[in-house]
Amino acid sequence: MILTCTPNPALDVSYQVDRVVPGTTHRIRSVLERAGGKGFNVSRVLTQMGVPTLAVGPVGGILGDSLRADLIESGLPHELLPVTAATRMTVAVVAADPPDATMFNEPGGPMSEMDWARLRDLIAKHLRRASVLVCSGSLPPDAPEDAYAGFVKLAKDFGVPSVVDVGGPALRAAAAAGADILKPNAEELRSAVGVDDPLTGARELLALGASAVVVSLGADGSILATPTATWRAVGPRIDGNPTGAGDAAVAALADGLSRATPWPDRLRTAVSWSAAAVAAPVAGTIDEDVLAGVEVEITEYPTP
Amino acid sequence: MILTCTPNPALDVSYQVDRVVPGTTHRIRSVLERAGGKGFNVSRVLTQMGVPTLAVGPVGGILGDSLRADLIESGLPHELLPVTAATRMTVAVVAADPPDATMFNEPGGPMSEMDWARLRDLIAKHLRRASVLVCSGSLPPDAPEDAYAGFVKLAKDFGVPSVVDVGGPALRAAAAAGADILKPNAEELRSAVGVDDPLTGARELLALGASAVVVSLGADGSILATPTATWRAVGPRIDGNPTGAGDAAVAALADGLSRATPWPDRLRTAVSWSAAAVAAPVAGTIDEDVLAGVEVEITEYPTP
Repeated sequence: MILTCTPNPALDVSYQVDRVVPGTTHRIRSVLERAGGKGFNVSRVLTQMGVPTLAVGPVGGILGDSLRADLIESGLPHELLPVTAATRMTVAVVAADPPDATMFNEPGGPMSEMDWARLRDLIAKHLRRASVLVCSGSLPPDAPEDAYAGFVKLAKDFGVPSVVDVGGPALRAAAAAGADILKPNAEELRSAVGVDDPLTGARELLALGASAVVVSLGADGSILATPTATWRAVGPRIDGNPTGAGDAAVAALADGLSRATPWPDRLRTAVSWSAAAVAAPVAGTIDEDVLAGVEVEITEYPTP
Repeated sequence: MILTCTPNPALDVSYQVDRVVPGTTHRIRSVLERAGGKGFNVSRVLTQMGVPTLAVGPVGGILGDSLRADLIESGLPHELLPVTAATRMTVAVVAADPPDATMFNEPGGPMSEMDWARLRDLIAKHLRRASVLVCSGSLPPDAPEDAYAGFVKLAKDFGVPSVVDVGGPALRAAAAAGADILKPNAEELRSAVGVDDPLTGARELLALGASAVVVSLGADGSILATPTATWRAVGPRIDGNPTGAGDAAVAALADGLSRATPWPDRLRTAVSWSAAAVAAPVAGTIDEDVLAGVEVEITEYPTP
């Protein structure tokens, strides 16, 4: 079972409008509510692909109740931790003309030290039967920078490898804790190491202690760096919804890690699932027809 | 006691941002939640001005719980009716540069026939000790066009006069039911009678059966038309938050109706409270310092 942790989930509310015009009033045509969080999306993709998974995360307040209700309704295996901080909301205003999304993300409330300890206990409980731990998405406000690093070390204590998808100091700390795969996008990598070139940045995270770094570069594909090899993979250019593409890649990397597949295969699968996720309208799902036809080109780079 | 009815309330969520840029992601600096609805604002102003009031309206779902919690916390006298339709949300994104608000208004769910009957019963229960009934704000989707008209007639059965603030067919119907004061703004009046000139429109509502019509024209003041007289009132030009200015005017008109003050006095008070509401940062409150200094110019028009 692949255990995913979403420490800063949100109730994602999605509004359909014709067009967003600042300073005016918009009548909403349709409203959708959904449990939001990158770890949840990873578990959704794994479930769709037939890979056993369990999603954990903290929830609080009335929006936490709605989030829990959505996970139950969708049949996603989960164990949520009731905490005192109220679950936050994000509002995505999806416009038809031009087709884009305007996002309003609440920061959420800080989690108490005791709730962090309880979340750690919950992860420990499930690590006993986990093959991989995935830590995904932003941390709540005022979270310790080494929150993910602590979970990575905890997983190591149980002999469980970990995948971490985050940016900034939390990414550096996870590298230093010896995470097995880091999967930042270019911006998250830049916020962690302060360099623009993704390969240079990835190698810096390897030097800190990570076993492998996959950097997603959007339409430019992905690079994978280990201490001994470097590959670049480019998939097809697909129009669609890029939200959740990174989560599909994380799901593929975690699955590959749990099955000890060769690195180039993991990268190929990550880019394929990611492309098929762009083709699916909702984050956390992949278009299986697109997946069947995806071609990925892999190049090995010289490693310095 | 002035009884206010808000048939389509909302949980108003307010986000502070620097600037709204369509198609981008905004991190929210601060989040405010508040029970929203024009009738609630009328009751808030009346409470501030020392006039006894009670607010009624339907609530449902988890947002209904939040709305109720806010009314309890604010100490506003209320009796809310639990209904099956979930209370809607509105999101106001308040930008600093330029200073404006971008609104996203959920439509809400339709109320069942049985819940309409229960709301009517709740109004009837409180009409026994009410001096005025105020019906304020939009109706839920698929509401009967004569919903307010029915409440106006119900109030008449109890010998209680009514003030109605709405637009469209519901305003026409309320006029035909013999409402004592209608208080549309220019746009609501236009949507009801299809003419641009506010005085012509007001006289059409009088012809349908209303006893008096007050049309608020923003910075251009207000006009008051009765079958025998017409006045225009212009207050000071005040920069501020126009949301809730109309509700303050309705509160003043209801108070004047309950105390049987002369028409020009009612209009003067309506324009004064409205101006003082613009000066207050939050809808449903008036700035008492501004109120003390407000000067209103009243002109009587020849009545044809």
